[in-house]
Amino acid sequence: MKLIMAVIQDKDSNRLSEALVGQDFQATKLASTGGFLKAGNTTFMIGVQDKDVDMVLSIIKENCQAREQLVAPISPMGGNADSYVPYPVEVQVGGATVFILPVEQFEKF
Amino acid sequence: MKLIMAVIQDKDSNRLSEALVGQDFQATKLASTGGFLKAGNTTFMIGVQDKDVDMVLSIIKENCQAREQLVAPISPMGGNADSYVPYPVEVQVGGATVFILPVEQFEKF
Amino acid sequence: MKLIMAVIQDKDSNRLSEALVGQDFQATKLASTGGFLKAGNTTFMIGVQDKDVDMVLSIIKENCQAREQLVAPISPMGGNADSYVPYPVEVQVGGATVFILPVEQFEKF
Ligand code: NI
Ligand code: NI
Ligand code: NI
Repeated sequence: MKLIMAVIQDKDSNRLSEALVGQDFQATKLASTGGFLKAGNTTFMIGVQDKDVDMVLSIIKENCQAREQLVAPISPMGGNADSYVPYPVEVQVGGATVFILPVEQFEKF
Repeated sequence: MKLIMAVIQDKDSNRLSEALVGQDFQATKLASTGGFLKAGNTTFMIGVQDKDVDMVLSIIKENCQAREQLVAPISPMGGNADSYVPYPVEVQVGGATVFILPVEQFEKF
Repeated sequence: MKLIMAVIQDKDSNRLSEALVGQDFQATKLASTGGFLKAGNTTFMIGVQDKDVDMVLSIIKENCQAREQLVAPISPMGGNADSYVPYPVEVQVGGATVFILPVEQFEKF
């Protein structure tokens, strides 16, 4: 058995939860901040059989992989009009940092 | 040494803390949600000597094991009287999902 | 690779974050309470190459080690004047409990 600790962005959290549940994997979410990813993040703790590690990694990759996103320009509300960019810009969102830990013993009470 | 990660229900959290402290085991609680257990949950992180793993598992089992509980009927406040059950019902509460992880090195500063 | 789980006091959290980032180490902070340390605490989760474990442990020790601190006397606001100590007292602050876990696989998406 393995314990997968995956740090992902908050915005991908619901989507990942649903994808995991849809494949009958159970995850516990730990409130986490800062670090591996710039924006707010969540740490998923997922216990899996050895044979299922690759499938869970695929699910994480599919739902959380870092990608570019177009962000609409925000009008400079009484701000510095010099820095105003009047067209959408691409920003990177998402991403996952994943540790697969060995489990010596597993119990359910 | 081992690191025990135990996901339990919030309602059993205080009782487990006291039982662990009473046997001189120290635990750190991580705020967690969803997943292994339906209701609100807490993840206990407990560092133990190899020889103490079984005792800590017994304490977790004794204080958190899934069990039936009688719940008094709630009167249907302006609700659907058809679905009102006028006698106590049994619901399952508690439960623990426990991972025992190997520790390569332990330090206290 | 190793996953370092370090439980430290909240008051040392910002200082440790900055020291780690200053050496290009990334950490995720988990909200945690009670246990290993009396006061409010935070759990740092730090993924490191085997060769960097000792350096990260040094950084944790340097920024979080248990130490004495002088606390100014608090005047007994309408309280029990008998227990009032009119000079600074030393209290112990800080401290770190650190688990180094083996990592079987590491992925970044
Ligand atoms: Ni296994
Ligand atoms: Ni050991
Ligand atoms: Ni390694």
